[in-house]
Formats: sequence, structure tokens, C-alpha cells
Amino acid sequence: MRHALALAEKVMFTTTPNPRVGCVIVKDERVIGEGATQPPGGPHAEVVALRDAESRGESVAGATVYVTLEPCNHFGRTPPCVNALLAAMPARVVVAMGDPNPLVNGHGLARLRAAGITVDTGVCLDEALALNVGFVARMHRGSPWVWMKLASSLDGRSALHNGKSQWITGEAARADGHVWRARSCAVLTGIGTVLADDPQMNVRHVATPRQPRKIVVDAQLLLPETARLLDDTPTWIFTARTDAAKAARLADRNVQVIELPDGRGKVDLPAMFRWLGENDINEVHVEAGEKLNGSLLREDCIDELLSYLAPVLLGDAAGVARLPVLESLDDVRRFAFTDVMAVGQDVRLRARVDENWLALREAVSLLG
Amino acid sequence: MRHALALAEKVMFTTTPNPRVGCVIVKDERVIGEGATQPPGGPHAEVVALRDAESRGESVAGATVYVTLEPCNHFGRTPPCVNALLAAMPARVVVAMGDPNPLVNGHGLARLRAAGITVDTGVCLDEALALNVGFVARMHRGSPWVWMKLASSLDGRSALHNGKSQWITGEAARADGHVWRARSCAVLTGIGTVLADDPQMNVRHVATPRQPRKIVVDAQLLLPETARLLDDTPTWIFTARTDAAKAARLADRNVQVIELPDGRGKVDLPAMFRWLGENDINEVHVEAGEKLNGSLLREDCIDELLSYLAPVLLGDAAGVARLPVLESLDDVRRFAFTDVMAVGQDVRLRARVDENWLALREAVSLLG
Repeated sequence: MRHALALAEKVMFTTTPNPRVGCVIVKDERVIGEGATQPPGGPHAEVVALRDAESRGESVAGATVYVTLEPCNHFGRTPPCVNALLAAMPARVVVAMGDPNPLVNGHGLARLRAAGITVDTGVCLDEALALNVGFVARMHRGSPWVWMKLASSLDGRSALHNGKSQWITGEAARADGHVWRARSCAVLTGIGTVLADDPQMNVRHVATPRQPRKIVVDAQLLLPETARLLDDTPTWIFTARTDAAKAARLADRNVQVIELPDGRGKVDLPAMFRWLGENDINEVHVEAGEKLNGSLLREDCIDELLSYLAPVLLGDAAGVARLPVLESLDDVRRFAFTDVMAVGQDVRLRARVDENWLALREAVSLLG
Repeated sequence: MRHALALAEKVMFTTTPNPRVGCVIVKDERVIGEGATQPPGGPHAEVVALRDAESRGESVAGATVYVTLEPCNHFGRTPPCVNALLAAMPARVVVAMGDPNPLVNGHGLARLRAAGITVDTGVCLDEALALNVGFVARMHRGSPWVWMKLASSLDGRSALHNGKSQWITGEAARADGHVWRARSCAVLTGIGTVLADDPQMNVRHVATPRQPRKIVVDAQLLLPETARLLDDTPTWIFTARTDAAKAARLADRNVQVIELPDGRGKVDLPAMFRWLGENDINEVHVEAGEKLNGSLLREDCIDELLSYLAPVLLGDAAGVARLPVLESLDDVRRFAFTDVMAVGQDVRLRARVDENWLALREAVSLLG
């Protein structure tokens, strides 16, 4: 299963909106076939692995198939993988986690068992979920998994008072941040950051065959039509204001303007994430300023923090998230650290909302 | 040598102002004696190990002696360890680092070599220095090694605006913090923290046979005579103000008031650390508020940060260190991360001023 997970890791940047899946077929203690999900429209991992075995002249009959996600059981752009497996008749199928798609969940495995194939589940469940947490979130709760990237000093300062911020964390941290951009379906920022920094919002420090979509939260539709982010990558602007002329001009540049007012002059952020879920967005990478960060946290839109800290103290300077003054720590949203590591001269801390993770974990925990 | 380091670790809380030293004697691939430095006035590690070998009926002649610090060569409260080694005549002595004491540095090893004993140096140098960084700092530069403990949210907030701070980090982090208090020679805070929190400033969450000294920076000598920290543990109050009557009353409670004005109404902080070095203080654990922290950082008195971060974001709240507004990141004192780990639900980051560490490392790097 670890090998299957590693195969899925390799297609991290390319399968969206489909899940990243790896499959390894083992017979007589030899790998006779392996594969990972191809870009949308292409074959799924199981079919790639079955074809690989075939091309090697190996028979899958009696073999064990390891797959990181329950094989699909419905016709999408490709025929169901369960059918392909039933045709090959392995002795055993080992599945890391269930497919949260209600069309699939458990049904595929039931058909395999009915055909006499042994099915085992739950192997490396957490690793498999981490690989497709966004896909599972979209299927299960209808909205993407959202992480917020922060880069700051050890005392949480993101920029000097004069706005000089670009180099608080080092090159390795920036490159690592681009890995997270590259795996996401969309990179989201606020109009404040666009006006202040004119970011490109694309993946540059790592190689990727696919650029994520761009999203700007821009309540007043202030986006300058000269912004560097306007480079023909599909872009969504969420706004609370109607300006048909500007929207039409932006449409010519592959930009769609979506009006989602919250009735108080701002964008309805929870509605925005539901809209993104409906539009096939699995994972959102937020890289914004302290104002939008604060709003997203207050509205409970963030599942995970991806925090890079530089070994400096800055004292009086801009923070990472503007939040209301609290009277008690009981009112604080608590995250749970999951991963702590050095990245170049900086450190990276990941922390998630455990209840959000556990709800998804439960959704894909197949009762063996 | 690792075993010798582990023996020295076990006396972490008890040898001050002497260094923590471990010694292991090996012959024919068997440990025939081992020991660590006893509390001040008691025997040093080498003598404990030699006596251990003797009590086991083993002869050290021809053996290899591993010791984490160069054996002493001068009469202090105990006779020189070099003499004891020359009497036992091992074939080889392996030393992790030199003794920065100018009375010793290299001379002890020269005497061993002159007697025909093979001497190897520099094994596990960094680990050995970490164990006695304060002793080396005091010997080499005349002032203690100073670390600053910080406990904050992921965005560097140490307390809510209403002062509610006590539980930002969890129990495990607090207990770990007490391990650092316990190894220090002195715990230092500011009068602001005393007035706000009335801390006890002692070691409670770990067992220790020795309480560190207490130090309060109190420019105006405002210390309430009812403060909980006044519990007969030797305490130093550094002040810029003369008040002989209050000083006399405090003297009855094991408190010494030291006047070190900087001429601007504050305590001369660099002079304070030199004074501490002259008074046998190897390691200082700073646990103070953002005002004193800021002053200590501005005056370049801090060698290391010991930062505990809780997985929460607090936004608008008190910081960990009040620092002047910077115009450029080039003006920032850079630390270097050395150690990142989870501690209960929190994480602990250690970062040091690399040039300070390297200066000490050079001082104890014996040229073999």
C-alpha cells in the first residue's frame, strides 16, 4: 500500500477534480503491475495497473490488488473500475479508504465480495485521506478543503509597518509553499493583497503541468485590469457589487465575476466555498493578507494552517490575521498540530481543525 | 562517548557552577567504571569513574577513558583529575571538548600525552558543548548563556488584552519549560511580570534537588515585600534606584539588591550579565513580559530563544517582545533554528544566535 500511495503522490498536481489514486498488483511476492490515475478523461489507477500487468504478459487472476481508494462503480468519463477488476478476477483487493461519493461508497466493494474476491479495507487510511482530503471534503460536505498559508516571524509578524514583507521567510519556504499551490485546485487571495503586492498567483518555484485556478475576493470589484494575475489562467472574482461592463471586459480575459453579496457589502464567504464545491474545486490554497485571513477564520472557513516561521522577532509590525479582541481563550478556534519540520532556515508547522478531519475520516472508513 | 554524555545529562540540575561531566572507562570492550560530576565540593566525573572501577576490582591500566570535558589540571575544591588519571595510567583518553578555563585549556591533555597516554579530542563536540554552554560562556566571555522562554499563539500573541495568558500553551509545554528552569542557574524576570502575575519563579513541574536563584529586573525597586517569589531562595534584585531601608529589609529575606543604573533610569542590562558571570552564573532562564524581553533583545543580551507555540491564532493581543519599528529586515537580529519538536499539543522551537555559539565552539575546539 505504501508503494501505491507513492504512485498516487506522483500525480498530485494533475488529476483534479478526480482523486489521486495509486494501484499496485502483487502476485507471488512480485509486483506484476502498477499505475496511478491519469489526467481527467484518462484511465483510473486500477485500469492503468491492469493494463501494465497485461503488457508485461502477467495474469492478474489470483493476485492481490492494492488500491488507495475504493474502486469506482459508476460510469463517469470512464467505465467503472470494478468492472475491470471483475474481469481480471484477482484473489484479493486491499483498499485504503472508501470513496465518499455516495454513488460508490461501499457498493463497489460489495460487488467484488459477491464475486468471491476477498476485500480488506482501512490500510493506511490516514495517509490515503491526506492525499485526497479535498476530494473527500467536496464529496462529503459539498465544499473544498481549505488551507491558509502564513509566512511570518517567530512572533507572528508578516510584514514591516512600511509593507516590506517579501523576504521574511527564505527561498526554501517559498518553494515549499509553491508545492502546496501546485497541488491545490485554486489559489485564493483578497483584493487588498492584489492592490498592495500585485501578485502573479501562479506556480513558479516547482515544475507543474497544470496551473491552479485563481480566485480573488473583491467585494467592491476594484481589481485593476492591469493586474499581473490576469494571464489567461481561468480566474474567478467573487464580489458583492454589480458592474456588468467590467465583468464583460474581464470575461474576455478568462475571468468570471461571481456576485455573492452577504447583505452587508461583503462577499458571503461560506456561500463562496459551497459554490466552489459545486464547481469541482477540491482544495483551496489561501494566501492573503491579515484582513481576509481574519474574515475567513472568523467565518470558520479554514480547515488547516500551513505556517512558515522565520527565526526572527519583529515586535511591532503587521500580523497574519486580524481577529476580534477576545475576552477568554475558551472562545478561540483550536487547531491541532499535525506536522512540524525545518524548511531551509525556517520551520513549517501544519495544524488542522481536528473535528473537520475526523468527520471526513469517518465518511471514508469502510466498515470491513 | 554517548554513554558519558548520558551520564552527564543525569546531573543536569545539580553541578552548577561546575560543568556537567560524564566519564566512562572501557577495557576489553567492557565498561569497567563510570561516573558523573557530583554536586559542588564532591568529586568530578573522572574520579567517580576511577573509584567505580576500583570498587569493581578492575585495573584502569591500559583502558580507554571517555570524558565529555577535558580533565581539570588545577587545584579547586578538589585535586586535579589529571593527577588521578596519571596515577591510573589508562592507555587512551578520549575528550569531547576542551575546558575553556584558561587554567586548563589544553594543559591537562599535554600532561597526559607527556606521560605516554594517547589523547583524542573533538568526539561529539556539539553535544558536549550543548551540555555546558553556560559554563563555557562564563569562562570564555565572562557572562552566562542566556535563553529567553516565550509561550504564545501561532501568531506570537502571549496574552489577551485583558491579561488572560496563563493557558495559551498546555501542561506539557509548561512542564518542559520547568525542565529548562531547573537546569538554569537563575530564573530572571521583570518587575512588570511580578506586579501583574505575582509568579513564584521556582521549579514545580519537575523534580529537582536544587532551586535556581531568582533575579528580578526592577529599576524603580517597586518589588512588593509580599511577592510570592520571596520564599528564602537566594534572590537578586537589579535596580537603578537607591533605597537602603528597603534593601536592608529584603536582605533579611535572602534578597540582595544590586544597583546597576544605566544613567537613563534603567538597569544596565549588559553590565548585569557581566555581574552574573562574575558571580558564578552559567545559564540564565529569562521568563518575562514583552517590555523586558524587548529591552533584552535590543541590547543583544539573548543567546537563544525557547519558544512554545500553541495551535491557535489570537490576532489582536499582547506580543512576546516589544521592539522598535524597523525600516528594513536587514536590521533584524537573525537566530538559527536548532531544534523543532512537538510538546504535547504545542510545539517547541529553539533558535540561537549562531555567531555566539560558534565563538564558544571555537573556544573549546582542541587542536588535536
